[in-house]
Amino acid sequence: MTQRRPTMHDVARAAGVSPATVSRVVNNERYIREETRAAVERAIAELGFERNEAARSLRPGQTTDTVALVIEDAVNPFWSAVTDGAEEVARRHQHMLVVASTRQSYDRERDLLRDLVLRRRVDGVLVVPTAHTQRDLHAELGRWAPMVFLDRVPAGVPADAVVLDNQGGARQAVQSLVEQGYRRIAYVGGDPSVTTGRSRLAGYKQALKRAGLPFDPALVRLNAHTVGDARTAAADLIEAGEVDAFFADNNRMCVGVLHAARGARVGVAAFDDIEFADLLPHPVTLVTYDAAAFGAHAAELLFARINGAGTSPKRSVHRTTVVTRGG
Amino acid sequence: MTQRRPTMHDVARAAGVSPATVSRVVNNERYIREETRAAVERAIAELGFERNEAARSLRPGQTTDTVALVIEDAVNPFWSAVTDGAEEVARRHQHMLVVASTRQSYDRERDLLRDLVLRRRVDGVLVVPTAHTQRDLHAELGRWAPMVFLDRVPAGVPADAVVLDNQGGARQAVQSLVEQGYRRIAYVGGDPSVTTGRSRLAGYKQALKRAGLPFDPALVRLNAHTVGDARTAAADLIEAGEVDAFFADNNRMCVGVLHAARGARVGVAAFDDIEFADLLPHPVTLVTYDAAAFGAHAAELLFARINGAGTSPKRSVHRTTVVTRGG
Repeated sequence: MTQRRPTMHDVARAAGVSPATVSRVVNNERYIREETRAAVERAIAELGFERNEAARSLRPGQTTDTVALVIEDAVNPFWSAVTDGAEEVARRHQHMLVVASTRQSYDRERDLLRDLVLRRRVDGVLVVPTAHTQRDLHAELGRWAPMVFLDRVPAGVPADAVVLDNQGGARQAVQSLVEQGYRRIAYVGGDPSVTTGRSRLAGYKQALKRAGLPFDPALVRLNAHTVGDARTAAADLIEAGEVDAFFADNNRMCVGVLHAARGARVGVAAFDDIEFADLLPHPVTLVTYDAAAFGAHAAELLFARINGAGTSPKRSVHRTTVVTRGG
Repeated sequence: MTQRRPTMHDVARAAGVSPATVSRVVNNERYIREETRAAVERAIAELGFERNEAARSLRPGQTTDTVALVIEDAVNPFWSAVTDGAEEVARRHQHMLVVASTRQSYDRERDLLRDLVLRRRVDGVLVVPTAHTQRDLHAELGRWAPMVFLDRVPAGVPADAVVLDNQGGARQAVQSLVEQGYRRIAYVGGDPSVTTGRSRLAGYKQALKRAGLPFDPALVRLNAHTVGDARTAAADLIEAGEVDAFFADNNRMCVGVLHAARGARVGVAAFDDIEFADLLPHPVTLVTYDAAAFGAHAAELLFARINGAGTSPKRSVHRTTVVTRGG
């Protein structure tokens, strides 16, 4: 039983516009009224107009041999290692990798993804969603090119995703601090609306509970966004004499905590590896993993989709290992 | 006085092939005999066939709105900061940035550049040449798209380049070690055929000379390519009791030297910043600069070329500052 697939003309008719206008919306061209764009996008969604049809009508027989990686920023060593792993896989599949940064702005994420998927027609996208990612955006764009979420999962989007074992890793690191004898363990972290942060905080609570330690909200400092923020938060807690150890929920938070902890006799654990841990004069417990392999893993899933593998969304969890270094 | 510009048909005639074959070579398609490719490339070079003609014949009225950055690898924090700065400038010019890594292989550099310039038609390329870069490659590809060399300059290619003040920075860092009282200062570095390494070694020698200290080749350890290599080289020198300080010629070498120097009473200086320097229990002297601004600076020069600015090659030196941190 085959059904006729909708064409661009069907979309135009349903939206009450010309096929040329549909093409302009699909190409993400400028100077299209917002209502017109919305009407066309609604018609595309309702008719289930598929990327393949678009490709056939607009770009006959071509692929761009390009995939995109949309990250937060290229400077954080976590993202640069992920980029390196993804680039290597893209190269093996004869694709180039375009790298773009959201800098945690949803507006920028939306503009980038539209440009990459609709105008530049990349063959697929690896995307680290921002905290404010809208479900509709990914539903709309996922129709045109396979997308794999990396590191985080936006709420309510049934999509492919490759994430770290955030909860398990955080739990084990905090358990390690408990085993080292610490009892008043603070949590320093970023945006609690991001799934990674939420899961790591859950792991922290779980470890306290298993150790029979009380959860004290006064020891949880969230919404630190820079090394400086984390340093200030940790210094405040040390000065108040309220803590004997810290769990930092990522590598930036860890650097800030380490600055505050210089000379203080406090334990430190963190999510993410830090290269210089061995050089520190005191021990630090880290949730480590192979970031390049993580990026490569996500890229392999993306290429499997590009090459037509299955359709039911796949969630893959990359394992972590807790190590104590330095001292 | 205007001369008729050569067309693809002229190239085809000169090379004794069909225009379609010229197009296939220019498009870097597969399954072209190496001799045919060589004949076409020779004809292109001899006739001075220009990119504009190619663009007009093959891609009428279009640009790709894409520029490329070809670096060594994405993981080194130096390259990731450069990438971040270049991406921001590309974005301001409504361009996407494709990032590709040579991993220090000339074969890979050649394949990447041909693919980017000839097949994908990027509007311009920022490239960090490998140690073995061939003059002909850049002369050939520079005809099709503006290229700006970043960080290093291949010998004998009169091209745009943005570099750091390698010699001056290294000289000042070694002078600082002398002022700190060190007299037997070793040099740990990578490939001496790369211009950055050569200039930094020259700065080291200059500082010794100015201080009236002898240059001892036994204290110079080159061809270290990894953190592990640098660590071994530095550990050997420490064990022999031959040195009281090290100058490491980049951030990777510095991490290796710092590992070897743990617990030893030796001075350490290095080219490049390292984020964790403040956390170390001993001082380290660093040649710092704004790597993101460096990448942005090179990208701005590339866009000036893309937009038609001048033609005489421009060499721009980005300044460095020596600081002592940690301790």
